[in-house]
Amino acid sequence: MFQIRTDLALETREKFDEDHIEVKGVRVDEERISPEIMITRVFIDTENGAKAMKKPKGTYITIEASDMMEEDEDYHREVSGQLAKVIETMLPGKKEELKILVVGLGNREVTPDALGPYVVDNMMITRHIIKEYGQYAFGNKATSQISGIVPGVMAQTGMESGEIVRGVIEETKPDIVIVVDALAARSVKRLNRTIQITDTGINPGSGVGNHRHAINKESMGIPVIAIGIPTVVDAATIVSDTMSDLIGAMRESAQLKSVGNGLAGLDEIEKHELARELLSPHLNAMFVTPKDIDEAVKRLSYTISEGLNLAFSRF
Amino acid sequence: MFQIRTDLALETREKFDEDHIEVKGVRVDEERISPEIMITRVFIDTENGAKAMKKPKGTYITIEASDMMEEDEDYHREVSGQLAKVIETMLPGKKEELKILVVGLGNREVTPDALGPYVVDNMMITRHIIKEYGQYAFGNKATSQISGIVPGVMAQTGMESGEIVRGVIEETKPDIVIVVDALAARSVKRLNRTIQITDTGINPGSGVGNHRHAINKESMGIPVIAIGIPTVVDAATIVSDTMSDLIGAMRESAQLKSVGNGLAGLDEIEKHELARELLSPHLNAMFVTPKDIDEAVKRLSYTISEGLNLAFSRF
Amino acid sequence: MFQIRTDLALETREKFDEDHIEVKGVRVDEERISPEIMITRVFIDTENGAKAMKKPKGTYITIEASDMMEEDEDYHREVSGQLAKVIETMLPGKKEELKILVVGLGNREVTPDALGPYVVDNMMITRHIIKEYGQYAFGNKATSQISGIVPGVMAQTGMESGEIVRGVIEETKPDIVIVVDALAARSVKRLNRTIQITDTGINPGSGVGNHRHAINKESMGIPVIAIGIPTVVDAATIVSDTMSDLIGAMRESAQLKSVGNGLAGLDEIEKHELARELLSPHLNAMFVTPKDIDEAVKRLSYTISEGLNLAFSRF
Amino acid sequence: MFQIRTDLALETREKFDEDHIEVKGVRVDEERISPEIMITRVFIDTENGAKAMKKPKGTYITIEASDMMEEDEDYHREVSGQLAKVIETMLPGKKEELKILVVGLGNREVTPDALGPYVVDNMMITRHIIKEYGQYAFGNKATSQISGIVPGVMAQTGMESGEIVRGVIEETKPDIVIVVDALAARSVKRLNRTIQITDTGINPGSGVGNHRHAINKESMGIPVIAIGIPTVVDAATIVSDTMSDLIGAMRESAQLKSVGNGLAGLDEIEKHELARELLSPHLNAMFVTPKDIDEAVKRLSYTISEGLNLAFSRF
Repeated sequence: MFQIRTDLALETREKFDEDHIEVKGVRVDEERISPEIMITRVFIDTENGAKAMKKPKGTYITIEASDMMEEDEDYHREVSGQLAKVIETMLPGKKEELKILVVGLGNREVTPDALGPYVVDNMMITRHIIKEYGQYAFGNKATSQISGIVPGVMAQTGMESGEIVRGVIEETKPDIVIVVDALAARSVKRLNRTIQITDTGINPGSGVGNHRHAINKESMGIPVIAIGIPTVVDAATIVSDTMSDLIGAMRESAQLKSVGNGLAGLDEIEKHELARELLSPHLNAMFVTPKDIDEAVKRLSYTISEGLNLAFSRF
Repeated sequence: MFQIRTDLALETREKFDEDHIEVKGVRVDEERISPEIMITRVFIDTENGAKAMKKPKGTYITIEASDMMEEDEDYHREVSGQLAKVIETMLPGKKEELKILVVGLGNREVTPDALGPYVVDNMMITRHIIKEYGQYAFGNKATSQISGIVPGVMAQTGMESGEIVRGVIEETKPDIVIVVDALAARSVKRLNRTIQITDTGINPGSGVGNHRHAINKESMGIPVIAIGIPTVVDAATIVSDTMSDLIGAMRESAQLKSVGNGLAGLDEIEKHELARELLSPHLNAMFVTPKDIDEAVKRLSYTISEGLNLAFSRF
Repeated sequence: MFQIRTDLALETREKFDEDHIEVKGVRVDEERISPEIMITRVFIDTENGAKAMKKPKGTYITIEASDMMEEDEDYHREVSGQLAKVIETMLPGKKEELKILVVGLGNREVTPDALGPYVVDNMMITRHIIKEYGQYAFGNKATSQISGIVPGVMAQTGMESGEIVRGVIEETKPDIVIVVDALAARSVKRLNRTIQITDTGINPGSGVGNHRHAINKESMGIPVIAIGIPTVVDAATIVSDTMSDLIGAMRESAQLKSVGNGLAGLDEIEKHELARELLSPHLNAMFVTPKDIDEAVKRLSYTISEGLNLAFSRF
Repeated sequence: MFQIRTDLALETREKFDEDHIEVKGVRVDEERISPEIMITRVFIDTENGAKAMKKPKGTYITIEASDMMEEDEDYHREVSGQLAKVIETMLPGKKEELKILVVGLGNREVTPDALGPYVVDNMMITRHIIKEYGQYAFGNKATSQISGIVPGVMAQTGMESGEIVRGVIEETKPDIVIVVDALAARSVKRLNRTIQITDTGINPGSGVGNHRHAINKESMGIPVIAIGIPTVVDAATIVSDTMSDLIGAMRESAQLKSVGNGLAGLDEIEKHELARELLSPHLNAMFVTPKDIDEAVKRLSYTISEGLNLAFSRF
């Protein structure tokens, strides 16, 4: 009924299913790894598919790991292993010959937006060591030449993250960029339970802080893989969804059926009128996040960095 | 329609007005300081009033400062001055003879909950200096003997904040405790724009992290003044309010009047049924907060610590 | 020649050996665990021994782990295991029946002094969970009831750490306190390579920040185990040692023998005169620490917390 | 006698005076601002002067502010004002037309090296606002277009700071770079009491972390002003100086005159032999810093950022 935002291709796809809309140019593929881990691949193949999904053409892989909120170390190791496998298939060459720049997007000072910076904090950084001591600095544990940067957010730097990243790429000539960022989901149920990996990079309007510029192959000149975990839901999305749910609930309720149908029968203009009245403009700059987001972000940043370390080293 | 939570006595009071309910045992007094600063005093005088308000008997003073989100230094200084005046009237003796313990409640790692810890970081701590060099260590700028503590949250310490504070009080015998905490409001419009000062301390269920134990005169044995700024709204509150607003909007809309009235006519049991369906259990542990909460919390922590430094020193 | 400071009983003992002084009332016991791990136990048995050593009677166990500056995870796990074994022998009861308070002394804002706070950050805190859900909250992995606190330093709180800890003990009644603190060594070679565990607690003048009050069984009323790693050398110690070394080197040099002997022959008063001239008063409030102290403190805090988690849980 | 390191041209110059060596191509100019503030300008005019001073040709301005360790706000404001005046004379154009990039060098995780990052944290960043709303976004308070970056250190990023800065310059085309960095002094007496401003930028071997690459006009293509405060002394410098002082003291002591003269009479090779024996290799990677470095660095970072904000805005 009202516009919602999600950075997860999976959720956009689900919405179409809910609304019984068929979308052409989008394929979906599901693989259950274990009772608690499910991998879904959404392929947006055509420009029409991209337009419908409001996301660029490319591959969006989602690791749904329902227990990622728990402290279970073995489970997190398993998720890291799955993440490493997904990343490895996307690397444009032999890992031990690659130069990889890992970018931690987001604001270290806002807990749910600190995921990217924390991941870079945890990364095994090797570029300076390999440059000084050669590929064999790490014995026979060959590894990629890894550099990392936390560009900060515009309020702190006065610059777009993309400007800083492009400058660093020009100077240091990596082969590929891995961008890690906290995302916005549509549903609170997905928060901190889902990893999305995509070869389309970061696109305007995505992320907790709503990036304004793209960080993708087109703007950076080299492949960009984006890894994200939803840590927030836009406050406006919660409110919109509540309204939709209320109307839905009323339609299903015997007593209120007529009321709900009446609402559903409003024309589009009236609906928007109603939405404008209810959605406080303050909500646009607000998000919803769990109270234990500090622990979640710390734990998840290790799950991702562990996955990356596995993917980039040949042990 | 559904239960809402607010730590602001002002908002609880307003709700009664909205619902045209008269509450006995509660007095309100308003004082406009300037176009952008308004002070409201809510006095809960009787047990009946306390029961209706779901807050203990005592005085709740609110400084509403609509521009506190702005970076204007002069404005913040003015608010600090008003806060100092309010605090001074509550001190149980001459400021230069008092021993004051300032407690920064909340979780430093969760941005909107870091207000209390940041305020203690900024405080002029004098107890150890006065104990070593005497009252005249600060020349003729007499000052209270100030100590400060950031007890952390239960997930970090395994202890209730109140246990730690009571232990520190027993050991160091202050005359009064000032507790600073981030609060939950009902309305997003109040976030980061309102300071509440109360002589009732901290009570169960209040604060961003929902304290379980009281930190008040009864439990601590000495007067406790609590200072708070709302930095979050409970996610469940947003959803409840949206439902109420939707129903309200429908009742006022010519076309939907009958629908809204129909809804309003549901009996209480049916309403709760509807609410239970809509309110995801995940929402209970979630909050709504602004995206620029990092800057807001830093700025507001200075506004409060500046007010306290003014109130405790005689320059 | 000049007064030196070390928090390591091991180093005080060595000094006597260097100076060919026999000390009564002090026993030493060495156990080589592996080429890179050595455990030394210094027992101060008598008051005379305590006076000579300038440390209280009791047991001082040192784990010297020469490779602790390296990133090798297996090695750190081995050191944690040795630490756990040492701790276990000191616990006053069955681990699953104990209430343990872990205190992280030191200043989180000064890198080499942040060891204690970081260890508490990493601890598995269980007290609140066991109090709410019972001993079996962790399944058959019985664990002690662990609480933790980071009291901060006097400049931040206006209170002695000992005051805060005693208050918390009175309120929460643990059976034993584990205090973790960064220490000062005499020799830069020991920095970040040695763990000292002692049943004498923390005593005045010890630690990076030179604690003024004791945190020991006498002052706290319950057993106190102190765990420390030297992360700094006092700047005055470096200078004193340089002077001693210079004189020693001269005595051994053929050409300068007479010069060195001449110096060594100065009487005590003249020596102190010389020392006073050379030792800038600024040096008293300064310390020496490695440039990569940030990485060392992070890594070592995990080694200690891992050891404690092992010691307190029965897996 | 032994090699010492200092980043302060003032100290290098003084050393020549101490040793009664006249250096050509170096001019010095002193201006006493107040009893507690002194400005010294060292001009290295020729390549010979540069070789002798081991610093590039250019201007080195030192603000010695003996009370900068105190908390006195008025005094810090005065120092900020003097800093602003010095900076203003070095700007290559009208401040309101300039695009300025402020770089905070150093390691945020090592307290005495965090000066640069903290200064950028405190800066008024305006580039993104002016780019969006134009020069008049700040009313008639015209200001430079300011951006800021904290590049991190090589162990964190795998990249030289200079690589990152050059990339950012290429992308965002500032007119001038201001680099802020923590420095190493020779004398502990200067720590946290001296600000050096130079138009020669950052050169290899300078800074707490010993930068390996230059950040100067030559390498960056635009003017680079470096602002630094010494927060550490190299541990090797302390030891060397102690040896020199000991020998000096002995030469002046009646009784030890012959001893000291004997030492001073050693030939260079023997002296180096002695130094090698005494200087533990561990010392090379160590520094000396005050225990209250956390408070000093916080306070000084405000003094610098305040100076920069004054210099870049026309109020």
